[in-house]
Amino acid sequence: MISTVQVIGIGTGDPGLVTYEAAAALREVDVFLVADKGDAKADLVEARRALCEHFIGDSHPYRFIEVPDPKRGPDAERDSTAYGAGVRDWHAARVAAYAAIIDQLPEGSTVGFLVWGDPAFYDSTLRIVDALRETSGPFEVRVHPGISAPQLLAARHAIPLNRIGTSIHVTTGRRLVQEYSPDLGDVVVMLDGHLACRDLVDQHPDLTIYWGAYLGGPAEVLRSGRLAEVIDELVALRAELREQHGWVMDTYLLRP
Amino acid sequence: MISTVQVIGIGTGDPGLVTYEAAAALREVDVFLVADKGDAKADLVEARRALCEHFIGDSHPYRFIEVPDPKRGPDAERDSTAYGAGVRDWHAARVAAYAAIIDQLPEGSTVGFLVWGDPAFYDSTLRIVDALRETSGPFEVRVHPGISAPQLLAARHAIPLNRIGTSIHVTTGRRLVQEYSPDLGDVVVMLDGHLACRDLVDQHPDLTIYWGAYLGGPAEVLRSGRLAEVIDELVALRAELREQHGWVMDTYLLRP
Ligand SMILES: C[S@@+](CC[C@H](N)C(=O)[O-])C[C@H]1O[C@@H](n2cnc3c(N)ncnc32)[C@H](O)[C@@H]1O
Ligand SMILES: C[S@@+](CC[C@H](N)C(=O)[O-])C[C@H]1O[C@@H](n2cnc3c(N)ncnc32)[C@H](O)[C@@H]1O
Repeated sequence: MISTVQVIGIGTGDPGLVTYEAAAALREVDVFLVADKGDAKADLVEARRALCEHFIGDSHPYRFIEVPDPKRGPDAERDSTAYGAGVRDWHAARVAAYAAIIDQLPEGSTVGFLVWGDPAFYDSTLRIVDALRETSGPFEVRVHPGISAPQLLAARHAIPLNRIGTSIHVTTGRRLVQEYSPDLGDVVVMLDGHLACRDLVDQHPDLTIYWGAYLGGPAEVLRSGRLAEVIDELVALRAELREQHGWVMDTYLLRP
Repeated sequence: MISTVQVIGIGTGDPGLVTYEAAAALREVDVFLVADKGDAKADLVEARRALCEHFIGDSHPYRFIEVPDPKRGPDAERDSTAYGAGVRDWHAARVAAYAAIIDQLPEGSTVGFLVWGDPAFYDSTLRIVDALRETSGPFEVRVHPGISAPQLLAARHAIPLNRIGTSIHVTTGRRLVQEYSPDLGDVVVMLDGHLACRDLVDQHPDLTIYWGAYLGGPAEVLRSGRLAEVIDELVALRAELREQHGWVMDTYLLRP
């Protein structure tokens, strides 16, 4: 039986974005379990390894186990209900893969999950850990917040995410168009594979967009401007970057 | 003319929540400007001083200037439009107070603003710095994200802020009741002086609340449960804590 699971928010790759508490937690981990999402995201696994080397070095022996990520079913892409169901099946498969490894670890081990950004934003680790508690518990769970992509977006553009007295709405590319209204306040969009905001231009041409890709990494790119004016350039730029790097992670804020 | 303004997110008082980048930025600052909000919030000024001592110590000489915060006009409390206007007047007065100090500093100084949590969430520093650029610029602005109260709330409760595929809405106590709908997804409430969620109980008794006060500090308190069941205890507890400490800062998540 393992003793502890550390869920560690590591920011977006830059060691400067890691908190002291997260760094200390890294140094307590015996075995890191890292989802291997295939070639495209290999850079991200590398970034995690580099952070561990940076903060742990030789101070503590640790292992890095890459857990092949189960494929997502095709219906995950269809509609919102099927999406939920697809994601849940996929979680179950991930849980089984992690449990198989955890159940083999030496008694009393500390297991670490390195979470990109902050575990609080669009990340499944805490749900997986909850499920692991059923299959492989009891163990202690400690969660360390990290700097999320939207926070870094705001810092780089030197803006707050809200305007005075109004709200911040954080949503996904999938939901944006059906959900959008200026009443939501400033809207942060994550997990958007094709800049869904392009479908808002006709109705809301005066939105301002603050966009960022590869935030915190060496390839960081920023753009901002009136949505109607910059969207075509953004769509082209995003396609080009994806081509060049093999993957792209971007997020943006829409401000009325 | 000063050379640089560092806007530094310091988390909520615990040095472990500071990032390495923020700590490095602290060590570059010659003069910290800190809003003095009167007796009640003196603890918070103290927390900032302690963080500076912790991270800077004797490595770099620095000054700590407390800038008395202008009083907010009474109409700041009335309605949302007047609220906006009240906040703007108050910002103008703060800008003038900061400019008066900045304009006296030695040529090339680096000025630091210590921002509670993250500058991206309900904080006026970036707007003030923008205004200062007009009166006392040009200077370079560098923004360092920090761990915000809602992130720490999520970490302490070991939950993400969103459910699978749905949104996160961050709002204020003032807006909550008029704005609330389960369609918003999970709702984070900040700046709520009287647990406005009590007015949602009748219509939405099945909401789950995850609440936290003094997060990251020695007096941290957490509660969670079905809103209808825990709201009375929470209201009483909050009043008691405010009595005991002279102030209370709390935030919560409402999950359908
Ligand atoms: C599965 S979510 C994880 C979010 C993460 N937990 C966080 O706190 O930022 C992945 C999404 O986060 C955003 N994202 C993550 N890293 C990013 C980066 N370095 N630059 C821009 N966006 C990023 C993108 O919107 C991406 O689709
Ligand atoms: C003016 S806003 C500043 C928020 C800050 N910039 C952040 O990122 O958390 C103040 C509000 O933040 C929340 N807050 C700040 N510090 C907190 C703490 N230590 N515990 C709980 N809530 C806190 C409360 O809702 C409070 O009304």
